[in-house]
Amino acid sequence: MSAPPGAVERRVARWRDGALDERADRIAEEVPVAFAYNGEPFAVMMATPSDLADFALGFSLTEGVIAHAEELADIGVAQRLEGWEIALTIPPSRARALASRERTLEGRSGCGVCGSKRLDDLVRVPAPVAAEPRVSASALDAALVAMAARQSLAAATGATHAAAWAGADGDIAFVREDVGRHNALDKLIGAIARANVDRDAGFAIVTSRASYELAMKAAGAGIGLLAAVSAPTALAISLADSANLTLIGFARPGGCAVYTHHRRYAGAPQGGNP
Amino acid sequence: MSAPPGAVERRVARWRDGALDERADRIAEEVPVAFAYNGEPFAVMMATPSDLADFALGFSLTEGVIAHAEELADIGVAQRLEGWEIALTIPPSRARALASRERTLEGRSGCGVCGSKRLDDLVRVPAPVAAEPRVSASALDAALVAMAARQSLAAATGATHAAAWAGADGDIAFVREDVGRHNALDKLIGAIARANVDRDAGFAIVTSRASYELAMKAAGAGIGLLAAVSAPTALAISLADSANLTLIGFARPGGCAVYTHHRRYAGAPQGGNP
Repeated sequence: MSAPPGAVERRVARWRDGALDERADRIAEEVPVAFAYNGEPFAVMMATPSDLADFALGFSLTEGVIAHAEELADIGVAQRLEGWEIALTIPPSRARALASRERTLEGRSGCGVCGSKRLDDLVRVPAPVAAEPRVSASALDAALVAMAARQSLAAATGATHAAAWAGADGDIAFVREDVGRHNALDKLIGAIARANVDRDAGFAIVTSRASYELAMKAAGAGIGLLAAVSAPTALAISLADSANLTLIGFARPGGCAVYTHHRRYAGAPQGGNP
Repeated sequence: MSAPPGAVERRVARWRDGALDERADRIAEEVPVAFAYNGEPFAVMMATPSDLADFALGFSLTEGVIAHAEELADIGVAQRLEGWEIALTIPPSRARALASRERTLEGRSGCGVCGSKRLDDLVRVPAPVAAEPRVSASALDAALVAMAARQSLAAATGATHAAAWAGADGDIAFVREDVGRHNALDKLIGAIARANVDRDAGFAIVTSRASYELAMKAAGAGIGLLAAVSAPTALAISLADSANLTLIGFARPGGCAVYTHHRRYAGAPQGGNP
């Protein structure tokens, strides 16, 4: 049994109804990944070491370090004893802006919050989303089924979240996995930014709940419809409402719950909207 | 329908097999909670605003701001327009240590990582756990069933994680819920610290996966056995091994997987160990 990328093997004692089965099992990797811009350390994230170039690009975009994929001139990835180092090269003007932001201790972390020290640091609402995909119930159902079949790390370890981009027809274009749901979405955002995907022509799915940070990242990336497999939080609904993002929760084949901007989702068989 | 603490009502459009059902639903709250020590802002966490005094104590302990519950002299909780402010009073010596730590930008966040900028900031292994509870398969099963029945916010919203403390007989003593799994465990750690619970006489359960940060928090709180309902990560297993913590994953009534320090879990009906 060889482990897929992002997984390792460990011994485990499995108990089931009093009987013991000792064997090797596949476990998801979680390692420190350190980002540095133009030689300056910026942040360390705990992440699964796969699709690191997508992670680097998506993280740089969602953190507002850069505004466009082309601003990331170079991505150097190196494995160290303690984890991974990602050395990123950005334009000098962006590096200067980052240094001045650093000094004021503004958010420096992937969850979008931890770097903040005061409540009023937090009030960030992204610009309203312009993309207007139209997603049918059958397209969302098809995407959910196809996505599950492509979560290879989750199938091996049971420990990872995934984020996917689907065309409006439900075809899956990208799936990215990580032990952290924020990281999985950052990796996906990096992948669609690199591919310059038409935001009017598709939507995103996450296997997790929809928290404030995930809604923020999706809206910031110009995604028009975000479907979460589990529940949203109240703040995620508020943010999605403000940011013109269609937020869907409890997305399962056969049904879902729509919380904001219903027009993008056609739940009725004939494509009607409420 | 009135919402339980930590939940609010929002309108939702539920689609099921092409049919629409519009109604009010209960949604978990996720709000910014700002911690300040002796008047100095420290960090903002996104959390469910329930059991905030337990959260404040647990967070202060797991962040290493204080070493004992008695060092937290006062907890002031106030609701603001943007979220909640928690004003904490600690001994002057602890406040000075915190200020000097702040200047070096050491970890300042609940996930135990985000404040770090360099890989070598991260190498933290807590002192080996001294507690030696013995937990039988039937006690773990009983605790899992009893815990689920007490997750009132999860039952209402489907959006929250929980952390629980159970006696070695499987009786649940405390359950704490939050949209964030780190916060749920911090709230539980605050609750057991306040009650000065005997760490030799019980164990903890979390409804989530077992990541590095959760294993770190549990070991740091002197918990001897941590059972997660879902999978562990490889780094959580390594940390648990080093910290003398028994780490269990996939804990469901009737079975579980033991990854480290098997002696504390008696999976066989006669109480034998592998």
